[in-house]
Amino acid sequence: MNDRQTIGETGGEFAFIDRALAQAARGDQRIIVGPGDDAAVLRCGGEAVVTTDLLIEGRHFRLDWIAPFDAGWRAAISSLSDLAAMGARPLAGFLSLGVGPQFPAADAEDLVRGVAACLEIYGAALAGGDTVASSSGVILNVCLAGEWQGRSCLRSAARPGDLICVTGRLGGSRAALRLLERLGPGAAWEGHHELILSYSAPHARTSAGLWLTRQDAVHAMMDISDGLSSDLWRIAEASGVRCVVDVSALPVSPAAAAAAHLTGETLADTALHGGEDFELLFTIAPEGAEAVLGGIVIETGTQAAIVGRVDEGEPGVFAADGAPIHPAFEHFAP
Amino acid sequence: MNDRQTIGETGGEFAFIDRALAQAARGDQRIIVGPGDDAAVLRCGGEAVVTTDLLIEGRHFRLDWIAPFDAGWRAAISSLSDLAAMGARPLAGFLSLGVGPQFPAADAEDLVRGVAACLEIYGAALAGGDTVASSSGVILNVCLAGEWQGRSCLRSAARPGDLICVTGRLGGSRAALRLLERLGPGAAWEGHHELILSYSAPHARTSAGLWLTRQDAVHAMMDISDGLSSDLWRIAEASGVRCVVDVSALPVSPAAAAAAHLTGETLADTALHGGEDFELLFTIAPEGAEAVLGGIVIETGTQAAIVGRVDEGEPGVFAADGAPIHPAFEHFAP
Repeated sequence: MNDRQTIGETGGEFAFIDRALAQAARGDQRIIVGPGDDAAVLRCGGEAVVTTDLLIEGRHFRLDWIAPFDAGWRAAISSLSDLAAMGARPLAGFLSLGVGPQFPAADAEDLVRGVAACLEIYGAALAGGDTVASSSGVILNVCLAGEWQGRSCLRSAARPGDLICVTGRLGGSRAALRLLERLGPGAAWEGHHELILSYSAPHARTSAGLWLTRQDAVHAMMDISDGLSSDLWRIAEASGVRCVVDVSALPVSPAAAAAAHLTGETLADTALHGGEDFELLFTIAPEGAEAVLGGIVIETGTQAAIVGRVDEGEPGVFAADGAPIHPAFEHFAP
Repeated sequence: MNDRQTIGETGGEFAFIDRALAQAARGDQRIIVGPGDDAAVLRCGGEAVVTTDLLIEGRHFRLDWIAPFDAGWRAAISSLSDLAAMGARPLAGFLSLGVGPQFPAADAEDLVRGVAACLEIYGAALAGGDTVASSSGVILNVCLAGEWQGRSCLRSAARPGDLICVTGRLGGSRAALRLLERLGPGAAWEGHHELILSYSAPHARTSAGLWLTRQDAVHAMMDISDGLSSDLWRIAEASGVRCVVDVSALPVSPAAAAAAHLTGETLADTALHGGEDFELLFTIAPEGAEAVLGGIVIETGTQAAIVGRVDEGEPGVFAADGAPIHPAFEHFAP
């Protein structure tokens, strides 16, 4: 395969993907049957935790903004973040890839490498997949299976009196996207390298999720994929509670704050409505807060901050001054 | 929601999918955590068998040829057939669905119902999913997890001397597609109802796969998804053997034979190269053939026929007269 060859010119086969798959799962004792048969067989210890995420070029990523490797990486992170929120240990990923015949074969290989490398770093193997011809853009679906620890902190488990916490800092992905839109990829990457990098190669909070799930004081948990405002609404509705956010307490990264200044967006909007930061949102009993917020740093190297509280009342999300906070995310926003 | 409402007009939510998901998994004791959280938790008994299949409108199905419910059904069958070949018991499915804002909401609901109904009939629950806006056509990915029986008959396990067998009859889907192309959906459905129905609502060989996997005489097994010629090549290469097919022994359904006559295709081509019949292809030690081919009918109600033998030699697929048989299926055939 040379660098300019398209998928169609490679002879109509995804041989490199078969090779990548075969390499990825080799030597992993938890993969009883790996790629190459009709399905994979995983040793998962009694219970399996499974999530699936579909990403479509143009909607979830743009290949003129980020490299194919990064698009693959982000697809994997999206699923790893879901498992982190369930307190599950990543085990095996399954990639469905749709690309057109004109797509460069080297780029397709980079996409697969991005998925495989990301999974490997978080302790999972790329154990299977499906490759199909797409007439329109790149389609990635990552399905990820993990081992359960015997408990998950569900969205429905928030209780009145709980404190609302988030890991890390919010708004980075949103700020990066705004800069990419406004400046174009060249200037955005050059002038705001750290911020764009946090967007193109994000982390999942796997170790923090595993640790938080073992703390009895932690009640509800989910990952922030659609933005804090949207995801708090999900907890409010699932738990039948009212969430009150101290907007001024929301942690925003300095780089995201600088970018928000450039694009004219308020810090509050950046932090409240920014999606795809892949941080964890969780609620804790107030008496356990000190131990949890101290322990998470020591045990997992992850910062977490209190950003609000859970009250009794009609499900909803409000600022401390009582102003309603609406969800940012709509699948088909006009 | 009225019948003419588009997905976009429903308010940008896939609320009906959330409802369908919540209903589908209710009461299944194997689903510890069902839809509505970041991932599902499944009780799978130590090992999980996982497969994933991506289907794209225009490439894998046409919604002017089959109903949305049937497109969903076929997507589920595609994964169920993979698990059947691994001898796994279906447990839980995960649907990723991409549709555009102009897509009728009622059709999207039918698609999801097709997936859920099919999974349910085969003993699995729709336990999770992901819904996204697609700018181009309908995209379905079904990921399916099952329980392992402790053995799978892998593609690499065929041995020289084995007999090659297939369940059911071949060529039905190919013949149906040719008729749909040639006559259009109206005339094809009217004149060839049984044949088109076998295409639009196929079965998976779940019980036959479970039973065959428990027979020591059965060595290699896979489902026929891309056509017997292509799939025999996979066994030949994985096992390092030569497969010899008695083309005249291939079982073709009478309806498919009649259709092949109409479209001018030979029976051999219909049976050899037709994909998506979702039958099982397996090899058995000759001394076990009688017991297996008798037992499979009595125990599972499934017919199976001997269609060839496995020889030593360079990997390849040949007719009984020595003529080479080439694989029919290419991902990106010109």
